[in-house]
Amino acid sequence: MVQSVAPPGMIDLGPGYLDPALLPVRELAGAYARAFDEFGPAALAYGENRGPEPLREALAARSGTDAGHVLVTAGSSQGLHLLAVTLGRPGDVVLAEPLSYDFGLRILTDHGLRVRTVESDRDGPVPGALTEAARRFRGRGQRVAFAYLIPAHRNPTGVTVPEERRRTLVREAAEAGVPIVEDDAYAGLRYDGPPEPPSLHALAGRRGVARLGTFAKTLAPGLRLGWIEAEPSLVARCAGAGWADSGGGFNHLAALAVAGFLADGGYDRHLGRLVGELRARRDALTGALGVAAPHGGFFVWLPADDGAGAGAGAGRAVRERAAEAGVSVADGARFGAAGAGAVRAAFSFHPPHVLAEAGRRLAAARPAPARLDAGSTTR
Amino acid sequence: MVQSVAPPGMIDLGPGYLDPALLPVRELAGAYARAFDEFGPAALAYGENRGPEPLREALAARSGTDAGHVLVTAGSSQGLHLLAVTLGRPGDVVLAEPLSYDFGLRILTDHGLRVRTVESDRDGPVPGALTEAARRFRGRGQRVAFAYLIPAHRNPTGVTVPEERRRTLVREAAEAGVPIVEDDAYAGLRYDGPPEPPSLHALAGRRGVARLGTFAKTLAPGLRLGWIEAEPSLVARCAGAGWADSGGGFNHLAALAVAGFLADGGYDRHLGRLVGELRARRDALTGALGVAAPHGGFFVWLPADDGAGAGAGAGRAVRERAAEAGVSVADGARFGAAGAGAVRAAFSFHPPHVLAEAGRRLAAARPAPARLDAGSTTR
Repeated sequence: MVQSVAPPGMIDLGPGYLDPALLPVRELAGAYARAFDEFGPAALAYGENRGPEPLREALAARSGTDAGHVLVTAGSSQGLHLLAVTLGRPGDVVLAEPLSYDFGLRILTDHGLRVRTVESDRDGPVPGALTEAARRFRGRGQRVAFAYLIPAHRNPTGVTVPEERRRTLVREAAEAGVPIVEDDAYAGLRYDGPPEPPSLHALAGRRGVARLGTFAKTLAPGLRLGWIEAEPSLVARCAGAGWADSGGGFNHLAALAVAGFLADGGYDRHLGRLVGELRARRDALTGALGVAAPHGGFFVWLPADDGAGAGAGAGRAVRERAAEAGVSVADGARFGAAGAGAVRAAFSFHPPHVLAEAGRRLAAARPAPARLDAGSTTR
Repeated sequence: MVQSVAPPGMIDLGPGYLDPALLPVRELAGAYARAFDEFGPAALAYGENRGPEPLREALAARSGTDAGHVLVTAGSSQGLHLLAVTLGRPGDVVLAEPLSYDFGLRILTDHGLRVRTVESDRDGPVPGALTEAARRFRGRGQRVAFAYLIPAHRNPTGVTVPEERRRTLVREAAEAGVPIVEDDAYAGLRYDGPPEPPSLHALAGRRGVARLGTFAKTLAPGLRLGWIEAEPSLVARCAGAGWADSGGGFNHLAALAVAGFLADGGYDRHLGRLVGELRARRDALTGALGVAAPHGGFFVWLPADDGAGAGAGAGRAVRERAAEAGVSVADGARFGAAGAGAVRAAFSFHPPHVLAEAGRRLAAARPAPARLDAGSTTR
């Protein structure tokens, strides 16, 4: 009934799933009941194309903007697909980091977009990289549709792009005329360190950057509810698609239920609990592994430069030894050729004691005592 | 918060909306509550890409097939978009009837598909038309992606394609190698006359026809829930898109809630009541108009050949006179050039006494005592 389930006997650190025990079933049942009570038939009608105002206003208020900048989506994946078909034409180039969200890239290539990586360091695309890449592809007569970036607690490496680099990226993209699609799925899942920098969308003055938000990582993926923050003209283009004119808002009832959960403070209480839980889980895994802890998100990235040598063979070797020890992890090569030899481990699914055990098994399976770098320089 | 609302003082027979009073708010609130109780966190997880088995099995059983032939969608519009991007490439030709669902065609053209009409009579594409059109476009080097057909209580004319014509269409399409996308949004909304013929999907032996189903017309559009019935290989292609691999089932929680509503008999009880209500509404409108009644669906089609002469001017004249009399109707030209001069009136939104009044006003606004044909010869 649900997406893949761990093989028996294995501690599965592969997918970026929330632990079912962390999904607020009772609270969301209440939120739906209240939406039916409060809105009655209007909760079941064709919703406004951009999504119902109560949710758009609540999301805008949290971002310091207005509802005209918000479009409600049927999840972040639907939002990315919508941006891909709205901003991109088959054959166009999309600029991306060398390590990026694999299924996100699949959504782009499914539409015929050509994903091309830009030179990046640990903190994201290096200064000048977007400009240079845009010039290069345009010089070959290719259209650059947008840059797809994941600046907060990036999947897969867990790294957050610092504010200074963000400002550089936004300025360069604006100068080069390259729109940015900012996948901010892990925004708000911050466990320590300095505060999360403002979004690229905010730093850009809310122009030229479409930011993807989702409730899948902070609330519940089965709701299929997300949103896009973008300039009103792009919101209008997305909401003016035949698909929206025909069906109305992309997930009307879920949007109203979650709007109520935001309004009555239930969401913030839940998020506070969730952040505490995930912090403890991160600590359990990174402590047992003896690696630095990422400041947020779901993932620990174990790079290949630990004495085992890089290359797909090394990654496979780590994964195979981990599997023999009873731990399943994601192959780093899934996220780009630059990930060959690395693995990604999620701490979102299991409770701390299981993660501690998984961390011990995984540490033993790794080939060297290790110069480890989990993508964060502190803690 | 919801899609367009009638202007004040006007009886709006324009959009194909269900009357809010016909939306089963209490029953669906109960269905969601039961889904949370029964499935707990599994109701909120990433759902299986094709949709949760309880709904797929229930839908398959109602169609006499198996769950392998069913994909759950986030509404019929999302389903049509998904088929458009899966089966079609920008520039491909889609064959359609001269009068067809305007927003459905927009979903296709948004993807760069070229909609071309095939010769049709009152009952749908005439024998030989699909074959001839496929040959013609292929002869010009164009790819024919599929034929988009609405065989049951067609929007906008209300006509249902008879079984014999359906068999011909299915045979011709198979011989010509043209897939059919069957938009069956109004299936099951049958008020009298002979039983609804089997779907094109069923008549084709469940190969080569992708049938779009939806709960928007029989239950509630705000759920954003529909489905596709197609051969398992096409279901797998749709479910294998990056968008589905990333987000899981397209509307997981809603699918589980409605699965329970189907299983406990609530849906069939609701549908029985709804059909009775809509029959009374149809009778009120067609009785006051003095036109033949369609056997099902939401619409009465008032063609231009009533003495007013055809052409967009005639349709505008009827609509303007109707508006002066306080009735809003949909311009027939919206649904294709062949609809110029005609209007479409929906009987789904208002109660019978309002429809009777609207019918009287509309009859007075029409130019001639009228040789009327609402798309049905019997009732």
